[in-house]
Amino acid sequence: MTYIKEKGKLLKHAEKQLSIASTKDKNIALEKIAQSIENNRLEILKANEVDIKNGRDNNMSEALIDRLALDNNRLDSILEGINTVIKLPDPIWQSNKVWTLENGLTISQMATPLGVIGIVYESRPNVTVDAFSLALKSGNCIILRGSSSAINSNKALVKAIKEGLKTSPISEDVVQFVEDTNRDLVLDMLKANEYIDLIIPRGGRNLIQFVINNSTVPTLQTGEGNCHLFIDESADLNKAVDILVNAKTQRLGVCNACETLLVHENIKDKFLPLAYDAIRDKIELRGCTITKEIIDIKLATEEDYKEEYLDAILAVKVVKDVEEAINHINKYGTKHSEAIVTESLTNANKFQRQVDASSVYVNASTRFTDGAEFGFGAEMGISTQKIHARGPVGLEQLTTYKYLVIGEGQIRE
Amino acid sequence: MTYIKEKGKLLKHAEKQLSIASTKDKNIALEKIAQSIENNRLEILKANEVDIKNGRDNNMSEALIDRLALDNNRLDSILEGINTVIKLPDPIWQSNKVWTLENGLTISQMATPLGVIGIVYESRPNVTVDAFSLALKSGNCIILRGSSSAINSNKALVKAIKEGLKTSPISEDVVQFVEDTNRDLVLDMLKANEYIDLIIPRGGRNLIQFVINNSTVPTLQTGEGNCHLFIDESADLNKAVDILVNAKTQRLGVCNACETLLVHENIKDKFLPLAYDAIRDKIELRGCTITKEIIDIKLATEEDYKEEYLDAILAVKVVKDVEEAINHINKYGTKHSEAIVTESLTNANKFQRQVDASSVYVNASTRFTDGAEFGFGAEMGISTQKIHARGPVGLEQLTTYKYLVIGEGQIRE
Repeated sequence: MTYIKEKGKLLKHAEKQLSIASTKDKNIALEKIAQSIENNRLEILKANEVDIKNGRDNNMSEALIDRLALDNNRLDSILEGINTVIKLPDPIWQSNKVWTLENGLTISQMATPLGVIGIVYESRPNVTVDAFSLALKSGNCIILRGSSSAINSNKALVKAIKEGLKTSPISEDVVQFVEDTNRDLVLDMLKANEYIDLIIPRGGRNLIQFVINNSTVPTLQTGEGNCHLFIDESADLNKAVDILVNAKTQRLGVCNACETLLVHENIKDKFLPLAYDAIRDKIELRGCTITKEIIDIKLATEEDYKEEYLDAILAVKVVKDVEEAINHINKYGTKHSEAIVTESLTNANKFQRQVDASSVYVNASTRFTDGAEFGFGAEMGISTQKIHARGPVGLEQLTTYKYLVIGEGQIRE
Repeated sequence: MTYIKEKGKLLKHAEKQLSIASTKDKNIALEKIAQSIENNRLEILKANEVDIKNGRDNNMSEALIDRLALDNNRLDSILEGINTVIKLPDPIWQSNKVWTLENGLTISQMATPLGVIGIVYESRPNVTVDAFSLALKSGNCIILRGSSSAINSNKALVKAIKEGLKTSPISEDVVQFVEDTNRDLVLDMLKANEYIDLIIPRGGRNLIQFVINNSTVPTLQTGEGNCHLFIDESADLNKAVDILVNAKTQRLGVCNACETLLVHENIKDKFLPLAYDAIRDKIELRGCTITKEIIDIKLATEEDYKEEYLDAILAVKVVKDVEEAINHINKYGTKHSEAIVTESLTNANKFQRQVDASSVYVNASTRFTDGAEFGFGAEMGISTQKIHARGPVGLEQLTTYKYLVIGEGQIRE
């Protein structure tokens, strides 16, 4: 625990300053960091080359190499991300609720930072900067534990961040990076309740499950999306096809992509051929026995309905009504994003009331579940849990609150 | 796990109905339950007598016997509690945030129930009914695990609740009681992520720590209150004495009672004798060496500053300024309720900004941190964590939300 404890002490000390820092000072810090990353472009790209070479030497798949790789364009996106966060309103020390009691006490529910956020994440180095910027703007310190495959890139990025902070009004201790990739240190982070207020795992199902099973620090579960699209009997079939194509094919490897298509039995003969024609070139379909009677595709197994493919595969099932669709979704879904295409107000309401998910759509693509699309500006991920924050985790979701109570000597009767 | 799993399945099934139940049906159910408890008075009091006899046989302290005991007055209070909850506004399917994106999608952030709440609690049988009523009104199912010392009282209360539910529109399965007091079943509850959405421990520090250390289900930490009162140099000393007397002596064994008094060194000679005279008859004081030079009390140790006495003892310390007071509080406090008495606007602001606690008071008693006092009507406890809910946990804090998105065929570019 010593390694994490030492970093924890620095963070808890820095928290005192950052939690009450002005928006102006936080924005200056972000500007200085952007400059510093700009100044360190070459060094960062060189460090990334080392990671990529190591990845290739270890037979990393090209998909993973692609997630790991940085180039000037991707660095531009990272810098753009910082600028987006600079422009976002500061969520701290804002209140939507102020009330006065009979006895004259005035209570304000005031937004405050959480304190120290721990991020445990996989290969993509841009997370280092994105997560840091969101934490800083919301007044939170951060401890970052990236994967060993991205260690050199992450080190170079954190070095640039700290160089930027050194020329700013904010202490460089607000960010700590776990350079030692020994997995025991992740366990130490997950038990460091004294120093870390919230742990956010960003990565695959195994990482998330490991964090949930082992953390005594509260966690924010993000990302897993086994999302469904249900085409009701009253659906406008043209809209339905467009939404299906968008939700399934616009980007394959994302958590808000559609993984299972549910079709009302009364329109199956009309809709399934339309859907098949629209996506068969790009997507492999796996269907239930009824689906297979209409379009010539592989048979889906129980496993297919459980799977978040993140790939060019779509499971298909014919259901007898909106209730069966809702039950299927509540059984197999991951509480992420679910959509119905319908012209029936009754079924739209029933679906939105009864489907248990962060975001429930009527006549729109599931791909909109995203901090930027929702208007939050940027996000730390999509929460699939019900506690603390649900759906896109923007700056506001990285805050807690305290009640400020102003009196004139009131005592309790 | 079988025992908890079976109950979990009943709860998850009942959740489907309860989560969309109308306010009217929930209120009818609460009325029927109040009637049923009224009808079962004798049986409940008899069961309670058995628990008290067992307690006495096991040499339970009189303080604990008192917490365990029911009589007609206490049953009246329980019934009054149900009536209070009936009158509270239903927090479910309400929205404070509805917005429309450029592309025409309208998003509503809609309050929904959490699902299934697990309560692990110690001796007081009234918690059985209080926690259940709040859960029901907020659309949540509940699984109750009380202490073995109250097993007969709790069984009789749950039996009455279920009898009431049977004559109501709500399924009796919405409440499950863990009759088997084997501690392994608590562990099973803490790992039952598939069936329980939130665990709330209600009891002493050991119980809370056990739950935090072992739960993979998200938890809501409540209750521990090492609360401070700081008398600043500019304080109105009469107000200060009144607030001290109220915060320390109005009720001793409660989490929002004051446990440590901090006094600015510039007023120590005036204030400490006043404070001493006002509470010495009822309260034992333990002070720092400077305090002891002014009033004749016992010396406080480091342990005294850490302790939540819940008793007729007060720790006292002289500090040199508001900064030292803030640092002391942030070091020893439990993030519950903290107060400053001051006429200085600067120091009031500094204290409220920098003290990290659910409720931070200026010129008022810490005893106001309470769901009913805050106007929430009733509460499930006082959260001392930063995640999900902070301070009094009323109906609103027992909800999550989902985003309802209404479109007309929108797809993502």
